[in-house]
Amino acid sequence: MGRMTFQEFSMKNKIKVEFALSQALKELSSPNDLLAAMNYSLQAGGKRLRPLLLFATLKGFNKEMELGLPVATAIEMIHTYSLIHDDLPSMDNDDLRRGKPTNHKVYGEALAILAGDALLTYSFQVMAEMQHSAITDEMKIRLIRELAIASGPEGMVGGQVADMQGENQELRLEEMEYIHTRKTGKLLSFSVVAGAILSNATPEQYLNLKKFSEHLGLAFQIRDDILDIEGTEAEIGKPVGSDQGNMKSTYPSVLTLDGAKQKLSEHIHFAKQHLYDCQIMHDYLEEICELIATRTH
Amino acid sequence: MGRMTFQEFSMKNKIKVEFALSQALKELSSPNDLLAAMNYSLQAGGKRLRPLLLFATLKGFNKEMELGLPVATAIEMIHTYSLIHDDLPSMDNDDLRRGKPTNHKVYGEALAILAGDALLTYSFQVMAEMQHSAITDEMKIRLIRELAIASGPEGMVGGQVADMQGENQELRLEEMEYIHTRKTGKLLSFSVVAGAILSNATPEQYLNLKKFSEHLGLAFQIRDDILDIEGTEAEIGKPVGSDQGNMKSTYPSVLTLDGAKQKLSEHIHFAKQHLYDCQIMHDYLEEICELIATRTH
Repeated sequence: MGRMTFQEFSMKNKIKVEFALSQALKELSSPNDLLAAMNYSLQAGGKRLRPLLLFATLKGFNKEMELGLPVATAIEMIHTYSLIHDDLPSMDNDDLRRGKPTNHKVYGEALAILAGDALLTYSFQVMAEMQHSAITDEMKIRLIRELAIASGPEGMVGGQVADMQGENQELRLEEMEYIHTRKTGKLLSFSVVAGAILSNATPEQYLNLKKFSEHLGLAFQIRDDILDIEGTEAEIGKPVGSDQGNMKSTYPSVLTLDGAKQKLSEHIHFAKQHLYDCQIMHDYLEEICELIATRTH
Repeated sequence: MGRMTFQEFSMKNKIKVEFALSQALKELSSPNDLLAAMNYSLQAGGKRLRPLLLFATLKGFNKEMELGLPVATAIEMIHTYSLIHDDLPSMDNDDLRRGKPTNHKVYGEALAILAGDALLTYSFQVMAEMQHSAITDEMKIRLIRELAIASGPEGMVGGQVADMQGENQELRLEEMEYIHTRKTGKLLSFSVVAGAILSNATPEQYLNLKKFSEHLGLAFQIRDDILDIEGTEAEIGKPVGSDQGNMKSTYPSVLTLDGAKQKLSEHIHFAKQHLYDCQIMHDYLEEICELIATRTH
């Protein structure tokens, strides 16, 4: 049997994660409205980039995908909760997400907040209940700790606060990197790091993969800012130019559009260097670099 | 050295938890506004009943208090996050909590939501970072799992959703117990159960303490409902009669005031029975039963 193409691999894992997410909800005995609100956003599509990063890392170490499925599920729950809370009227006040009404538009604000809280909490339960024979208790603790750091006050939540505070201000590059490293970077990074932990990576491989994922996270954000200028509404699922409308500092506004493109290719370059230094099978992770550098949505 | 009175024990542990909470925040490198919002509600007082339950359980097994401090901190973070989110305009829309302005009144809605998210997430980090030599990795996993179950979609969050759905309706007793078991009961119960896990309780002791804590949780809620009728505003820190004003079903509205008092003493009775069956030093836990049965705030 030949090796899957990246497209096959990517599609297969997307289906796997989406099935695992719906299974995880089926195991819950909770009020129906709550489950419906959680499920609505969990199944609202998206690229499933974070699970894909985790699976591609496992593949790099020649591990089976089952090993990473609960962590992938937990990551996607946390990513989804963050989108639900970010979209709330008191935050970004968005009516649409990926072309569909946002959670609070469908279920109301109270249930949207609680669906987010539930997804966040449940993600830690899913991690604590991992049962694969190759996952030791020590690994579980380490994964839970890293996930909490990536998502909490020093990670994603801290980045969101800094982002709010930076609105309507001209930020310096370092301030923007502070925000993005936390708001989107740390959870993306965890997706790779978790794969390294599950694969018993050597300390050197671990550090290289961490660096790889940090450059990749910044590249992801820069591409996002570029898309806000160059993309089409149909492709990105929200109005083009919304950053300018919101008076947000972006990589193009700070570095010019060409400068942002230059910065993007630098981060992709450094990401790849660290990846090659790992000496693992890196073809899928390399494809993800390309995907991020050139994505149109 | 003689044994502390319950009052001394209770005061000492309150100070210990409040110090641990402020230490835990000092370890964070996060935006100042976020830390301020988290700290405001963490230090807003309260009885610290859940940590007290945990410490009294440890004391029952003659364990040192240090063993339970991180778990007590985590529980209080989760309890605090739940109060911040419950008070939000789209939920209970409360302006006052314990006689002070609610979190969103001081910091705004967005920061209040994020402070809650941060406290919830950080609580799992605190648990994963426990370092006491008597706490095994297996114990940590078990504690993290139980805390997530108690707080998540099948626990506290599920109870809050059911509570919202039950507003402006006449509920049956079973429906009310469904709500309270989850909304307040499971986290109270976890506080005792965590003490049992940390103390290596036998399976029989564990089950008795679980039953004890479940009866205690229901007693706590019934007393809360009675206080809403009989208490004074100064004592309870919010307007008296707010349940009636909100058209909420309560134990007195379903069972009459006398019926509710009867139910309260039944739960206290059963709680004590299970406690005595544990054969641990039960005097502090017994005092907590009295405290809950007779509390005026």
